[in-house]
Amino acid sequence: MQRIDVYRVPTAGPDDTSGLAALMDAGTVDPAHIICLLGKTEGNGCVNDFTRGFATSAYRSLLARRLECSPDEVAARVLFIMSGGTEGVLTPHMSVFARREVASSPDAPATSKALAAGIAHTRPLRPEELGTTAQAHAVERAVREAVGQAGITEAADVHFVQIKCPLLTADAIADAEARGQRVATSSTYASMGYSRGASALGVALALGEVAREAVSDAIICKRWDLFSGVASTSAGVELQHCEVLVLGNRAGAASELVIGHDVMADAIDAAAVYRALASAGCTAAPGDEAAAFERVVGVFAKAEASPAGRIRGRRHTMVDDSDINHTRHARAAVGAVIASVVGDPMVYVSGGAEHQGPSGGGPVAVIARPA
Amino acid sequence: MQRIDVYRVPTAGPDDTSGLAALMDAGTVDPAHIICLLGKTEGNGCVNDFTRGFATSAYRSLLARRLECSPDEVAARVLFIMSGGTEGVLTPHMSVFARREVASSPDAPATSKALAAGIAHTRPLRPEELGTTAQAHAVERAVREAVGQAGITEAADVHFVQIKCPLLTADAIADAEARGQRVATSSTYASMGYSRGASALGVALALGEVAREAVSDAIICKRWDLFSGVASTSAGVELQHCEVLVLGNRAGAASELVIGHDVMADAIDAAAVYRALASAGCTAAPGDEAAAFERVVGVFAKAEASPAGRIRGRRHTMVDDSDINHTRHARAAVGAVIASVVGDPMVYVSGGAEHQGPSGGGPVAVIARPA
Amino acid sequence: MQRIDVYRVPTAGPDDTSGLAALMDAGTVDPAHIICLLGKTEGNGCVNDFTRGFATSAYRSLLARRLECSPDEVAARVLFIMSGGTEGVLTPHMSVFARREVASSPDAPATSKALAAGIAHTRPLRPEELGTTAQAHAVERAVREAVGQAGITEAADVHFVQIKCPLLTADAIADAEARGQRVATSSTYASMGYSRGASALGVALALGEVAREAVSDAIICKRWDLFSGVASTSAGVELQHCEVLVLGNRAGAASELVIGHDVMADAIDAAAVYRALASAGCTAAPGDEAAAFERVVGVFAKAEASPAGRIRGRRHTMVDDSDINHTRHARAAVGAVIASVVGDPMVYVSGGAEHQGPSGGGPVAVIARPA
Amino acid sequence: MQRIDVYRVPTAGPDDTSGLAALMDAGTVDPAHIICLLGKTEGNGCVNDFTRGFATSAYRSLLARRLECSPDEVAARVLFIMSGGTEGVLTPHMSVFARREVASSPDAPATSKALAAGIAHTRPLRPEELGTTAQAHAVERAVREAVGQAGITEAADVHFVQIKCPLLTADAIADAEARGQRVATSSTYASMGYSRGASALGVALALGEVAREAVSDAIICKRWDLFSGVASTSAGVELQHCEVLVLGNRAGAASELVIGHDVMADAIDAAAVYRALASAGCTAAPGDEAAAFERVVGVFAKAEASPAGRIRGRRHTMVDDSDINHTRHARAAVGAVIASVVGDPMVYVSGGAEHQGPSGGGPVAVIARPA
Repeated sequence: MQRIDVYRVPTAGPDDTSGLAALMDAGTVDPAHIICLLGKTEGNGCVNDFTRGFATSAYRSLLARRLECSPDEVAARVLFIMSGGTEGVLTPHMSVFARREVASSPDAPATSKALAAGIAHTRPLRPEELGTTAQAHAVERAVREAVGQAGITEAADVHFVQIKCPLLTADAIADAEARGQRVATSSTYASMGYSRGASALGVALALGEVAREAVSDAIICKRWDLFSGVASTSAGVELQHCEVLVLGNRAGAASELVIGHDVMADAIDAAAVYRALASAGCTAAPGDEAAAFERVVGVFAKAEASPAGRIRGRRHTMVDDSDINHTRHARAAVGAVIASVVGDPMVYVSGGAEHQGPSGGGPVAVIARPA
Repeated sequence: MQRIDVYRVPTAGPDDTSGLAALMDAGTVDPAHIICLLGKTEGNGCVNDFTRGFATSAYRSLLARRLECSPDEVAARVLFIMSGGTEGVLTPHMSVFARREVASSPDAPATSKALAAGIAHTRPLRPEELGTTAQAHAVERAVREAVGQAGITEAADVHFVQIKCPLLTADAIADAEARGQRVATSSTYASMGYSRGASALGVALALGEVAREAVSDAIICKRWDLFSGVASTSAGVELQHCEVLVLGNRAGAASELVIGHDVMADAIDAAAVYRALASAGCTAAPGDEAAAFERVVGVFAKAEASPAGRIRGRRHTMVDDSDINHTRHARAAVGAVIASVVGDPMVYVSGGAEHQGPSGGGPVAVIARPA
Repeated sequence: MQRIDVYRVPTAGPDDTSGLAALMDAGTVDPAHIICLLGKTEGNGCVNDFTRGFATSAYRSLLARRLECSPDEVAARVLFIMSGGTEGVLTPHMSVFARREVASSPDAPATSKALAAGIAHTRPLRPEELGTTAQAHAVERAVREAVGQAGITEAADVHFVQIKCPLLTADAIADAEARGQRVATSSTYASMGYSRGASALGVALALGEVAREAVSDAIICKRWDLFSGVASTSAGVELQHCEVLVLGNRAGAASELVIGHDVMADAIDAAAVYRALASAGCTAAPGDEAAAFERVVGVFAKAEASPAGRIRGRRHTMVDDSDINHTRHARAAVGAVIASVVGDPMVYVSGGAEHQGPSGGGPVAVIARPA
Repeated sequence: MQRIDVYRVPTAGPDDTSGLAALMDAGTVDPAHIICLLGKTEGNGCVNDFTRGFATSAYRSLLARRLECSPDEVAARVLFIMSGGTEGVLTPHMSVFARREVASSPDAPATSKALAAGIAHTRPLRPEELGTTAQAHAVERAVREAVGQAGITEAADVHFVQIKCPLLTADAIADAEARGQRVATSSTYASMGYSRGASALGVALALGEVAREAVSDAIICKRWDLFSGVASTSAGVELQHCEVLVLGNRAGAASELVIGHDVMADAIDAAAVYRALASAGCTAAPGDEAAAFERVVGVFAKAEASPAGRIRGRRHTMVDDSDINHTRHARAAVGAVIASVVGDPMVYVSGGAEHQGPSGGGPVAVIARPA
């Protein structure tokens, strides 16, 4: 039986691997079981954020030493998904996903559903494919593969799909143009949004959240009514393909954890966070966050500044701010709202929610230990 | 009988006075009754934030035209308190406080308490007095005067004291040093904190929140356990004295509004916001913000990045961020938490809460229309 | 005979009009002669820079008082062109252009050429015209008109054409789309570049710097080899039309000043600044800036971060910096280079040089008192 | 005979070690000879700049692999001095200093002086020593040791002393206070300046640039007339002691390089850069930078925003800018001025010049291949 464990360790800096090292030293985590490291690092989360690469480098080295293999071999078996930006109250931390086969589980009878996980990756994408249906379809296939690997049989049991996807660099754009190809955008920063958006639509296709015929190149980053309620996509300069982590519940899993999710309608939708907690079997109420704090082992959400420039009919200034990028504002706001509900600032909130939840909102997933 | 009315208008920019102009055109607001304009403007809220001055200039001109007097005469009778920074979801807006004498009020019988307000100002402060007990004592006297003007007789009925105070400029520091005097700090940015802190202690002294003998120059911006639970102080380059707005409840007021407050223990203390709403006679619950939204006419809070670097035991990165000032992070976080509770991003959140609430927290006041 | 005078006053803040007021008080400047105020204000120079509007408001009020007319009447006769951003060593200041008819000039015999100026404006542009040939052609016509007004007969005698042009707001984009029209870009920030670029090509067309058949919608902000060597264009939210100031030399002008210019090939092209000085009759050498400092009354330049990401073959990081906008980096760099040559940080350097000089470079003009 | 070689390689990112690797692969650089890596990395150069640590980590790993020893052993023999911030035109790059004993040098006869180098480090400093004369004296001793190691016998032959020094963290401050000790400042950011300042005075003492009796705790970061003309100090979180690199000329060195320096009086003092070039035997002139470009192998300078708020009598806005740190503005400005003189943006400019050159200015050193 598949068993998934999730460990969350705070970090004192991008290259602070001491928390995970201690878990391995104590025998709590076997490095051979790790399938994914999902981190919040304290950079700006934008183009020139080197904390993502620094963390990846440090953790890859740690695992290479522990597994006695090369960093490249580690990279081939473990997903390293680092999301920059801990604005406001957010705490830099690392979530460690470990998967192993166990004989049986006294705590999770085969008839109830428990946490399952699968990973996969796409082929490398060409620059001209980024932000197009070609990317969406490649992601769709990888999501299906990861869902199958997790042993999840119903789309409704998938609660969070984390994607790491590439972006366009100046060199990549030049390469495409030299071959007579067009790219989705000539702005490297804007390409992050296109890549996130196309990847999210790939998730939506895999899970049947949008109609196949509705998806074309023309609607990517245009038709905000088409979205996935469980996709969380993050672009980075450090890869050319997409990496996929699927999280859901399945019968027959030996995990002691369950996952649930809901969708925030906007950046201040605390009610959706309460619902997400409830969907993972947790209850919380204003002033009584302790119960949630004890049992939650991870909260994962997407944030964005409402592109319409309004939240509940009120003007916001995030999009027109030339000093602070709007993804940074959005993480600060949504991170604080979620932290106020769960009573813990150590939550994963990633910025830029194109086709991930409705316009101005985003998915929020909770992994918890059942009561 | 004194009657206080509060109007809140969104603004499309720092110099957008159309909302208030429309209220005056419609006869809703008589310019002669206005005692204070308290605004959130969309600058950085730090030293080089010119949106505060731009808004002050535009509103002063508007009132000068309507009152047919000079801008200087307007400045002598109306407090213009502009707080910069609308990070995250916060909406730029202006709160208009109007006071008039009315014969009686059918809605607020003389036996129940209703909103009252008083204003006052200190003498000009010398640079060497800024951030010292001299400033605290000057503010203390002005607060007592404004409390008396409001007709409030018990300290517990004071729920919010807004102070606008000066800061040290390079010229002011040079002037003091030329006279052989020492200033509290040679950093113009740091002087904002000293001025806010000394002013807040003045409020605490006036209301008996701290023991007189506990307050000395040495504890200002050091002893964070000494604080006011109702002070909200904001520093700006545009004045040399302090201006004071006292808000509270009193019997015999003809206002249709009441004010209440509570104190946030940290930046994610949503429970305190719910309590503040309740103290003003409003109820709200996650997913049911409509009731609060309808009756609240103003929420006023202070925010700060916990100086200890921790919130609920978790590390935050606000203080070490050299790209975004920590007061900006704090407003984004606290603003979002409050907006999520009241269902409205048009709230007043000001950064830098030295001696205003406990370390890392701050006061939050609510003015509402009773049920 | 036309006589142009140029006065340069430092400012202590966006709304500091004391320098110009003093010039008028002293009788040096007659407000009725002022045709243009060209300012550097200390905001971020990007979308949410309110120092431009604050300065415009303050100076318009000053002139309205002095001319005893309404601010609107002032706006109809005087160009207010404010460029935000004084990064690095740059000094906030205002250049005042005054024009009058004089009987004769003992200092400038009719046979030699001296400074002449003309102003004009286009019709209001529709959102869908912004960044297209429609804008370029409208600017072209206005430039021809201003050249004619200045009495300049040869294109080679035009040394600086300052344009203030509109940008796309979210509302403007929505308006165009509601009418079934397409806009050049859906990004309000990017629209600043399109508007600057189309305006610059309008200057290039008016002066014969590019072939008419080479200019089409498709090449705007694409074909960087097409540019004007004298255009300086600046976008702002505060107008829907374009305003034009043409500066050049003509025989028969009574001015005591001359203008010259050159084109910087890149951001560190100090040699071009020396040539521009020489073209205005000034000499300067490293370590001997005093001569230039004494006689120069204005330096006006455009700056941009090389879009190719390289300067003299070396990588720069301006374009990928998500903390500081690349126009801010460029102003800091080019401003310092120019200040080091003329020995004075009070120079006008504006960011974003699309089709204004070659890619990565820009025009630099000098107005000076001849020896 | 001692021979010093200097290699300068551009980097594509903080962890890009390919340039140095290629030099070692080609046999140009023997890793065993490397004594110091001095880098410019593309972070913000302030407290939360992780590009310095990322670069150090990557280069230390590279050398550990090449030297077949542990990263700790590499750290014991090689100085890694990373300075963050490549604002404006500055190019991220690494300067590699290699030292070896050679039998003789046909190019540099023993009678002429050529480049020599020495390294040393202080004992670990306690938090309460940082920014005090204790730090200055510790640095003084280390500088003397490094000068001796370099074999330089006259202070006038020392042209550049690079120091890497610690800063105060929140933990360090708490530690000192727990032991009843006072620290120089409670601001972690401000502690960078105190550490740089005390270190620079240590250099000045070692070289006789200031009178011993003039230096006391009270004058550190106060008496700007006391300074070293060759010190370049940089604070970082990654060490508790100070590391020292001394560069100068000596007779009997086998190097093919010489070093010279001069002192910029302010941020736009291009003449000082020309003099520094000349002092290293190079000539350059505006428009003719090629000669310098060919022979210069390194330019090293310090930059700061004039604390007086003025440059050549003109106001600057760097110090009051709450969006961009003034050290960032200063690097952008000074970097561009130097690049414009040498025709190359790949120069080392570090921010924060407390007691390093006169107030508002700083040292600039040039290493070049003689004609």
